[in-house]
Amino acid sequence: MTIFEKMLNKEIPANILFEDENVLAIHDIDPQAPEHILLIPKETAAGLNDIENWSDEQAGRYLKTVVKTAKLLGVDKSGYRLVINSGRHGGQTVPYLHMHILAGRRMNWPPG
Amino acid sequence: MTIFEKMLNKEIPANILFEDENVLAIHDIDPQAPEHILLIPKETAAGLNDIENWSDEQAGRYLKTVVKTAKLLGVDKSGYRLVINSGRHGGQTVPYLHMHILAGRRMNWPPG
Repeated sequence: MTIFEKMLNKEIPANILFEDENVLAIHDIDPQAPEHILLIPKETAAGLNDIENWSDEQAGRYLKTVVKTAKLLGVDKSGYRLVINSGRHGGQTVPYLHMHILAGRRMNWPPG
Repeated sequence: MTIFEKMLNKEIPANILFEDENVLAIHDIDPQAPEHILLIPKETAAGLNDIENWSDEQAGRYLKTVVKTAKLLGVDKSGYRLVINSGRHGGQTVPYLHMHILAGRRMNWPPG
């Protein structure tokens, strides 16, 4: 079981921003910006490719959670970057789907 | 009207990877990786915050298009990075929603 599944199951602690019916939103332990949140879906997926097995509604609610998070952080107006790493070239380090939301500074280009 | 809306309307040319009922997928004119695709939704949105006005199904179909694109490029196994820039801090340069898919090299961290 991955570290994120253990956090979802409350088997290990996490620095939680919020939890709702779709996601667990936690603070990244190695933040790359003043605000750096991970959105971990409750619907199981080893990575982004697996959302093909989700319903359109499930995938949509997951994406929309980004906006909820940005508003909660108060960065919806100032701006933020959404990143999902898929597989080796993407830089995915945990084999359980998670989105990164980075905010609080001007993000650079290229994105890694 | 933004450059992306003009591309959707076929008023200006674009280097198109594919087009379906949900998106226009084009090659970025200033690629930051061997493969760098933009997914421009046909459903209007000035940025990511605006998907709150979409149905869950519309938002989900947009996100799922990433997987279709990765398979078409042949990078679903090797990996890729999905990026959406929202607002000033995110580095959004065109006020019309678009996703970046970068692949073909190992992406670095932090993501910009």
